[in-house]
Amino acid sequence: MEINKSLQRLSLIIIIIAGTFFFSHKAFAQNKTSYMRIANIVVDSSRLESYRMALKEGIEAAVLKEPGVLSLYAVYEKSNPTHVTVFEIYADEDAYKLHIQTAHFKKYKSTVEGMVKSLVLADVSPIALEAKPKL
Amino acid sequence: MEINKSLQRLSLIIIIIAGTFFFSHKAFAQNKTSYMRIANIVVDSSRLESYRMALKEGIEAAVLKEPGVLSLYAVYEKSNPTHVTVFEIYADEDAYKLHIQTAHFKKYKSTVEGMVKSLVLADVSPIALEAKPKL
Repeated sequence: MEINKSLQRLSLIIIIIAGTFFFSHKAFAQNKTSYMRIANIVVDSSRLESYRMALKEGIEAAVLKEPGVLSLYAVYEKSNPTHVTVFEIYADEDAYKLHIQTAHFKKYKSTVEGMVKSLVLADVSPIALEAKPKL
Repeated sequence: MEINKSLQRLSLIIIIIAGTFFFSHKAFAQNKTSYMRIANIVVDSSRLESYRMALKEGIEAAVLKEPGVLSLYAVYEKSNPTHVTVFEIYADEDAYKLHIQTAHFKKYKSTVEGMVKSLVLADVSPIALEAKPKL
């Protein structure tokens, strides 16, 4: 009888863990129909550190505060550190439009105004978006 | 007594869920020290569909089968569909070296040999890698 109860409890735990994975996978699959863009930015070489700090602060605020900002990955080229790429995933195009109206985005834009030498934005569509489960 | 048991069970479930979130956050934080690169590929316009299929198949196999391949995001420009970008995150540089020796990567390379007009690879370092938890 005691063993049966333990088994019941174990089953419940397994169901919860399996459910967590299932829904996490579903949430990821939904990203595939989201709005995506790539920003290619060339930064003034004398302002690299300030630029990176402003970008990091803007990105952290956006992903934390905005429900429609799903993912912002910003990197710079090791052999060419003035070249920055931001890979952006929003829930939909409206989420992007909301994003560029936020106080933190406007603060980022005004902070980096004199630091950015060029900015090329491209709307992109997914071919494959695969990632390990976050465990 | 029965209520106490239910509460115990509920506590256990909450601990498991909280633990799942905690470790998922840790796993993501570890990505920040991983090996990253961006591949910019120009594809023969007459082979777009075949190229995308081969790339998608290769990416799905890599993330599924290789423990060190953390994330592969491949997209194409909407206004210029021959331009493909792959944002790649590996656990470390060794994981990348293993990746290019796998059967699925070699199959991808031989399949797309005549389809790729140019390939530029850049090693990159993170400025910010922020994403919503996958729930």
